[in-house]
Amino acid sequence: MSHATGRVWSPVITPFTAELAPDRERFVAQCRWLLDNDVGLAVFGTNSEANSLSVEEKSQLLDALIEGGIPAARLMPGTGASALPDAVALTRHAVAQGVEGVLMLPPFYYKGVSDEGLFRYFSEVIERVGDARLRIYLYHIPPVSQVPLSLALIERLLKAYPKNVVGVKDSSGDWSNTQAMIDNFAADGFQVYAGSEHFLLQTLRAGGAGCISATANVNPGPISALAKAWQGADADAQQAALTNTRKLFERFPMIPALKAAAARYSGIEEWAQVRPPLVELNEQQRQDLFAILDEASFDMPGLKDG
Amino acid sequence: MSHATGRVWSPVITPFTAELAPDRERFVAQCRWLLDNDVGLAVFGTNSEANSLSVEEKSQLLDALIEGGIPAARLMPGTGASALPDAVALTRHAVAQGVEGVLMLPPFYYKGVSDEGLFRYFSEVIERVGDARLRIYLYHIPPVSQVPLSLALIERLLKAYPKNVVGVKDSSGDWSNTQAMIDNFAADGFQVYAGSEHFLLQTLRAGGAGCISATANVNPGPISALAKAWQGADADAQQAALTNTRKLFERFPMIPALKAAAARYSGIEEWAQVRPPLVELNEQQRQDLFAILDEASFDMPGLKDG
Repeated sequence: MSHATGRVWSPVITPFTAELAPDRERFVAQCRWLLDNDVGLAVFGTNSEANSLSVEEKSQLLDALIEGGIPAARLMPGTGASALPDAVALTRHAVAQGVEGVLMLPPFYYKGVSDEGLFRYFSEVIERVGDARLRIYLYHIPPVSQVPLSLALIERLLKAYPKNVVGVKDSSGDWSNTQAMIDNFAADGFQVYAGSEHFLLQTLRAGGAGCISATANVNPGPISALAKAWQGADADAQQAALTNTRKLFERFPMIPALKAAAARYSGIEEWAQVRPPLVELNEQQRQDLFAILDEASFDMPGLKDG
Repeated sequence: MSHATGRVWSPVITPFTAELAPDRERFVAQCRWLLDNDVGLAVFGTNSEANSLSVEEKSQLLDALIEGGIPAARLMPGTGASALPDAVALTRHAVAQGVEGVLMLPPFYYKGVSDEGLFRYFSEVIERVGDARLRIYLYHIPPVSQVPLSLALIERLLKAYPKNVVGVKDSSGDWSNTQAMIDNFAADGFQVYAGSEHFLLQTLRAGGAGCISATANVNPGPISALAKAWQGADADAQQAALTNTRKLFERFPMIPALKAAAARYSGIEEWAQVRPPLVELNEQQRQDLFAILDEASFDMPGLKDG
C-alpha cells in the first residue's frame, strides 16, 4: 500500500530557561510554527530531551499545548519510560487529551532483554491504560536506547493488539531494516516512519508512511513539501536538497545544533539551553555552524515573528 | 589506606505482588534479615529493578523502611535517574531521611556524552539538593548504563565537591579499573567498592572499602564474614568459597535467580515476581538452579522465620 501523501513529524526541541526549567510559552509558539510548516508534533522524543524531563514536566507541557489551542490530532508525544508506572501514567494522560498516538520507547535501562520481557512491558502498558483510543507507534532506536525491537516482537504485538499498535519509527539508520518493516507489516495499514528525512523518498516509494526527523525542527517546510509531492517529477532533486541540509547539521552534536539554530533564527538566546548530560555548542562550533548555514542560504522563515 | 574491616552492601531485591506492586512489608522484613547478616542496604540498585520503579514508589519504599525501624545510617539508596528533576527529588528525600549516602547512576539515556555534560549533571544535583549531609557514591556500571564514569570525571567532582562525593561502586568487572580508582583516590578517604564479592579480598588488600554485590542478597553472612576477617589466615579459602557460590547464580539471569532463591528459602512464592522487561526463571531454569544449590548445600538461614 503506498500513500498518496507522506507524513512528517518533528520531535520538537524543548525550550528551557537559563535555570533549566521548561518554558511552556515558547514551547507552544514553536509548535505553532511547526504546524504552520505542515509537520506534526512528535513532542517528547529523543531530540526533545524527553528522558531528561520528569513525567510531571511532560504532562504539564502537553497540557500547555492543548490549552494553547494546538490540535490534539497533530500530537504524537513520546511516553515510553524505563519504569512501567511512568509509561502508564503519561500514556494515560496523553490518550485522555485525545492525541493522535504515542511514540513508545522500550524500557531502556536493562540491556539484552528478551522479546518476551519487552512484549510483557508493552502489553502491561496497553492493558493498564485500557483505552480503545490508545494508538502506539513503537520506537526502534538501538543506537541510543540500546534495546532493539525485533520484527518478531512487532509481529507478536500486532497480533495481540491490532487496534492499539499502529506503527513504528525506525531510527536504526539501517535501510534494510526499514524495508523489512514495510514489507512485513505495511500492507495491513501499519505505518512505518523513517527516523530521518534522508530516507523520506525511499520510505514513501516502498510503501512507508513518512518520517519523524530531528531536522524537521529546523527545515520543516521543505521536508513536508517533498512528503506531499513525492510522486512528482522533481522528487529526487528535492530529496537531494533535504539530504544536503541535513548533512550540515550532522557535522555537529545534533540536539545542541538544532537549538543553536533555533536561538539564532528566533532571536531568543535561551533556545540554546540544553539539560545535562547534554552540552550546548561551544563558541567555535556555533560560529562554524552559522557560517555553514549562511553559505547554504539556510533560513527558518517565519520563526522570528512566531 | 587500608581498612581494618571491609564493608558489604546488598542491592536489595524489590518484592512485588502478583499485580506488580511493591510489597512494603516484605521489603522491610527482607532488609531486617540482611541487617541481621551484617550487610548494609544499597536499596534501589540495578538488582533492585530500581529503574523499573517510579520516584514515588521509591520514596514510599524508603519511608516504609524508616518507619519500620531500619536505621538510616545503614541505607545507601540508589537515586540516579535520566531526568535531573527525578534525581534531585529522590536524593533530597533520601538525605532528609538521614541516609548514610546515595548511590548515583549517571543519566543513562544518551550515549557518548561528554565528561563536561556528566560533571554538570552531578553538579546540578548537588547544588539543587543543597544539603551538607549529602554523601554521593558514584555508580560506574558501563555494561548496563552504557555511560562510563572516567577517572578524570571523578577527579574533577572530587575537587569541586570533596565533602559530597565520597566513594564509587565499580561494576565494570574490570579489576584494572578498580585498582586505578583505589590508586588515584583512596588515600584521601574516597571509598572504592567492587561491584562483586568476586573482587572483595582483592579490593580490601589494595585499600578499597568492600563490595556492593548482587549475591549479597542471598549469601550475605559469608560475604560479610570475609569483610571482617580479610586479614586472617583463612581469607583466601573464604574468598574461594564466596566465588564458588556466586558462580552458581551466574549460570542464570541474575535478578530472576536471586528472586527464585528468595522465594524458595522464604517460602513466599511471590518473591519470584519481576517487573517487565525482566522475566522470571522458567520451570526448567528454576529446577536446575535449585538442584545446583542443593548439591552445594546452599541455604539462606533465618529467612523463613524473618
